[in-house]
Amino acid sequence: MSLRTFRELLLGPPLPTERLRDERLSVLRGLAALSPDALSSIAYANQEIFLGLAVAGAAGLAFADEIALAIVGLLILLAISYTQTLRAYPTGGGSYSVARENLGVGVGLVTAAALLVDYTLTVAVSLTAGVTALLSAFPGLAPQRVAICLLLLILITLANLRGVRESGRWMSMPVGLFILSGLVLIGGGIVYALTEGPGTYPTQMLAQQGHVSVPLVLILHTFAAGCTALTGIEAIGNGVPLFKPPESRHAIKAMGLMVLCMGLFFLSTVGLTEYLAVLPRPGESILSALARQVFNGGILYYGVQFSTMLVLLVAANTSFNGFPRLAFVLSQDGFLPRQLKLLGDRLVYSNGIILLSSMAGILIVAFGADTHALIPLFAVGVFLAFTLSQAGMVVHWLREKQAFWPVKAVLNGLGAVGTALAFSVIAYSKFLDGAWIVVVLMVLIVVGFLQTRRHYREFAAELSMAGLPPRLEPLPEPRVVVPLSSLNRVSLNALRYAQSISSQVTAVHVETDPEQTAALVNKWQRWGMEVPLKIIPSPYRSLIRPFLEFLDRYDEEYNDGQLASVVIPEVVPLHWWEILLHNQTAWIIKLVLLYRRRRFGKVRAIIDVPAHLRHRTRQA
Amino acid sequence: MSLRTFRELLLGPPLPTERLRDERLSVLRGLAALSPDALSSIAYANQEIFLGLAVAGAAGLAFADEIALAIVGLLILLAISYTQTLRAYPTGGGSYSVARENLGVGVGLVTAAALLVDYTLTVAVSLTAGVTALLSAFPGLAPQRVAICLLLLILITLANLRGVRESGRWMSMPVGLFILSGLVLIGGGIVYALTEGPGTYPTQMLAQQGHVSVPLVLILHTFAAGCTALTGIEAIGNGVPLFKPPESRHAIKAMGLMVLCMGLFFLSTVGLTEYLAVLPRPGESILSALARQVFNGGILYYGVQFSTMLVLLVAANTSFNGFPRLAFVLSQDGFLPRQLKLLGDRLVYSNGIILLSSMAGILIVAFGADTHALIPLFAVGVFLAFTLSQAGMVVHWLREKQAFWPVKAVLNGLGAVGTALAFSVIAYSKFLDGAWIVVVLMVLIVVGFLQTRRHYREFAAELSMAGLPPRLEPLPEPRVVVPLSSLNRVSLNALRYAQSISSQVTAVHVETDPEQTAALVNKWQRWGMEVPLKIIPSPYRSLIRPFLEFLDRYDEEYNDGQLASVVIPEVVPLHWWEILLHNQTAWIIKLVLLYRRRRFGKVRAIIDVPAHLRHRTRQA
Repeated sequence: MSLRTFRELLLGPPLPTERLRDERLSVLRGLAALSPDALSSIAYANQEIFLGLAVAGAAGLAFADEIALAIVGLLILLAISYTQTLRAYPTGGGSYSVARENLGVGVGLVTAAALLVDYTLTVAVSLTAGVTALLSAFPGLAPQRVAICLLLLILITLANLRGVRESGRWMSMPVGLFILSGLVLIGGGIVYALTEGPGTYPTQMLAQQGHVSVPLVLILHTFAAGCTALTGIEAIGNGVPLFKPPESRHAIKAMGLMVLCMGLFFLSTVGLTEYLAVLPRPGESILSALARQVFNGGILYYGVQFSTMLVLLVAANTSFNGFPRLAFVLSQDGFLPRQLKLLGDRLVYSNGIILLSSMAGILIVAFGADTHALIPLFAVGVFLAFTLSQAGMVVHWLREKQAFWPVKAVLNGLGAVGTALAFSVIAYSKFLDGAWIVVVLMVLIVVGFLQTRRHYREFAAELSMAGLPPRLEPLPEPRVVVPLSSLNRVSLNALRYAQSISSQVTAVHVETDPEQTAALVNKWQRWGMEVPLKIIPSPYRSLIRPFLEFLDRYDEEYNDGQLASVVIPEVVPLHWWEILLHNQTAWIIKLVLLYRRRRFGKVRAIIDVPAHLRHRTRQA
Repeated sequence: MSLRTFRELLLGPPLPTERLRDERLSVLRGLAALSPDALSSIAYANQEIFLGLAVAGAAGLAFADEIALAIVGLLILLAISYTQTLRAYPTGGGSYSVARENLGVGVGLVTAAALLVDYTLTVAVSLTAGVTALLSAFPGLAPQRVAICLLLLILITLANLRGVRESGRWMSMPVGLFILSGLVLIGGGIVYALTEGPGTYPTQMLAQQGHVSVPLVLILHTFAAGCTALTGIEAIGNGVPLFKPPESRHAIKAMGLMVLCMGLFFLSTVGLTEYLAVLPRPGESILSALARQVFNGGILYYGVQFSTMLVLLVAANTSFNGFPRLAFVLSQDGFLPRQLKLLGDRLVYSNGIILLSSMAGILIVAFGADTHALIPLFAVGVFLAFTLSQAGMVVHWLREKQAFWPVKAVLNGLGAVGTALAFSVIAYSKFLDGAWIVVVLMVLIVVGFLQTRRHYREFAAELSMAGLPPRLEPLPEPRVVVPLSSLNRVSLNALRYAQSISSQVTAVHVETDPEQTAALVNKWQRWGMEVPLKIIPSPYRSLIRPFLEFLDRYDEEYNDGQLASVVIPEVVPLHWWEILLHNQTAWIIKLVLLYRRRRFGKVRAIIDVPAHLRHRTRQA
């Protein structure tokens, strides 16, 4: 099987550019493709609320529903704000475009950096949370946590390299299954709660705290962690152009459906958990503990775990839509390497996909696939992007003054203030837990953006032909130098080629072994070679430096404003391992000549004359 | 600090070839340079005897002195054999030369493979045993075992890259210290034994076995492991040419001194250990336990541990003399890559040193720096090489029939039989413990030797100019193709260069973006370019394949027996990180053209025309 066949088996055959138009999504398909991140957030947000409050025992856990209500309030505020955004910016690009257009390039780039970091963290957090759902049901697999995460990451990456439409179809099933199993869990939970009545925590948890009041800092800290429930709701806003026309209408419908599900699931699971006083086993998630209690560990329990895991995998996938698209936009604006602009032969931005996948893989390994350790990094960037994007919208309405603009500005203003408050809480309470890493990273990314654009600008200026005379004479015939260690068919070939392009050819031999040199000189005379042969001594047996020094002397001597071209005889063996059997002098000379700086405008061409060996002789 | 300054600081300045003669060793310096492997072997051989017998409790440990005596017997036999060898082969090369000359190339190569494996294992075993000596005195460092081993390996490698004479001087101190501390330990041990009387093992060790007899297989197994005491005694024989003239006489003196020390140290430490019924703590070596008991853990104890560690490091160093020299000989005979023949600028075979160091590093990591796990791999190769080399000497005497040849033949014959017996015991009793790895490895190495020689022979035949007409015409002027994505200073440079070497230049543009193509065509006309421009469609947006297909079509069209040369415009940015900001298309084209097989004799030259950017414009 050739590499090409293997590639096509894995990724599908190449697609022509015209098919780009067809790759659009319907409301439900779009919901399936863009909402899983938001929907699945409740899996880890639930967990964070529980972990945050459990330190204060039963008294702490009693605050769960208040925190959940506050977060759902923020959810509704954000949903309204984003609906206005996607109507105003139907071309996508999301928070970055909005912030850049209304608040200037600087703020735009900060937003973009926040988004790139968050896309990456979404992949890492969703995958590790998905694996937690799996390990909650099958604790025996716990030691393979990191390996399982990486395996799933690779599978998702391959699916995305195949293309978005296929990913979309592939993903409708898990999202449907998750919504279904969520509804069954809520229904079952309500029935269970009605028949069994409220649960109670073990007495030692009640005694532990006694009547001590729960400190506010703990509640804020938990609120901050719980805000991760809102991550991902911007995805539909950023993905408007992926929908079938009319894009905005389809996107708003998808957004409404999504927010409804999120609010319902989040409130009811947190409420049920608190009412039933659910406690997880070690290594188990709180959602798993709830489902286990409601369904008494039966087949429905495994159904919930499985669909939670699937939807989290699909959530990780959401970033694979958003990240490469944002990278494309940034690359078009000159802030990221232009390779991210290339459309792969499956009509996806393959380089962006691979970049995202590699960075998420590094995060997963660095944090040992531990969701709880990744959460502090996660929320800070998301809420910074939320705030900047909403603030941008306020400026937008103030400038545009469309119909009902004061209402719109107030709504977005509320969104900005709400998310800014949440951001402050998160940044303050999670700074030492890991939020600082994101801050440092974002600074580095923004510096990188600016450096990149500067490089491209300088590069374009330097490549510009402005100022050149209208018709340039061709260069004069080059002088040519051929380095060689001995006279054989390969070096003879190179000499003949050199003679075909220039009448001034010089052969050069660096003497490291006097016997070898004598043999060469002798053979040179015997074969009556017309090309002059220069012998350069090398007392320290090095080849490269004496050769470079010779080149400099030679160019100086002629002083014709040109640099001599170098023709390099190179042997290409039949099998790859045979490369190890030859000195890689040809490669070293090529590299050194390529990266050795000379004055701009002067050309030292490096001419490789390869000879492919084929082993005509066969002897033991 | 430049790379070159850093290199010279680390390795010293380059040395001219004439200084090669001066790098010779006196008897004591030679002893210091070549004997540590043999001397230090007693550190781990002692340990292996103890570990082997301890499973049978006190009854087993009572056999230690019998086993030690048998091994010393073998030592004397080997010493006599090797004295004859080094007298007969004063040019070094050791076992490989002897076996090859007398028993044929096949046996010679098997011997060489065994030696290469053993040099590598010597490094790994000595280093890990040295670290065991250190950790016996400082158990707190135990978790860093592998890291400490690798650090020491790097230090030894650097010392050797500086050159043998410096290594020799550097090494006289540890060997002297080890001999001194060994004598002090033996003296102290005898005094302690006389004053304290014999030791007894704890009663549970005596009870454990009762009166059950110790099985023969256990004794053989222990003998096999104990034979590692003899590893390294061939080093002086292989290193004769390193001595000052008269080489043989100096080498024999060094050999005698070495064998005396080895026998004395080995017998007395094993005897004392048995007499005093010494038992080590967990993780401690038996030699450390003996010294701790004799010196009651005082300053002298630390002296013994320190000098043991040092001499083991120096023992690891022995291989750094032997391995590169053997690799050089094998490389001269065409069995190993010719890079191993190169003398570095410090007059050492740098490539051989680096190869040895890398392989030993892999072994250390793979076996977790555990000496006991490496020992089964170690002894089998050593004794195979011993046997083959002694058998070779027997054949040598039978052929040469010099004075006293029957006596000499009998002596070497005894050596061969003795080591063959030991080899059989080792191979049988250690096969499943790891000796099989060495067997597999040796087969692979010998196959590699033969493949390598075959490649070089075929290569030489193919490069030979035999059969060529005496005066070859230069090739006709090449057709030249210049691939480009846009018209700018860099591609213009490449076009002008192409025109300077050929009158048939064609520019080629692969169309991946119709807008870009239209802009190019427009600019081409505006600038009045004389070179014809070919546009090649690429429906799948790939650059390379359409270009290669064009080249094939173009060559077919002309059918002039030539392949078109390709001139590649290449941008070299100012900073290394800027390389990431450009598509590496130039590199990919160069690589693909270089490794794409075409008929032999037809030349497709690859011409790189680099332009070095320097960022003349400065703008934010």
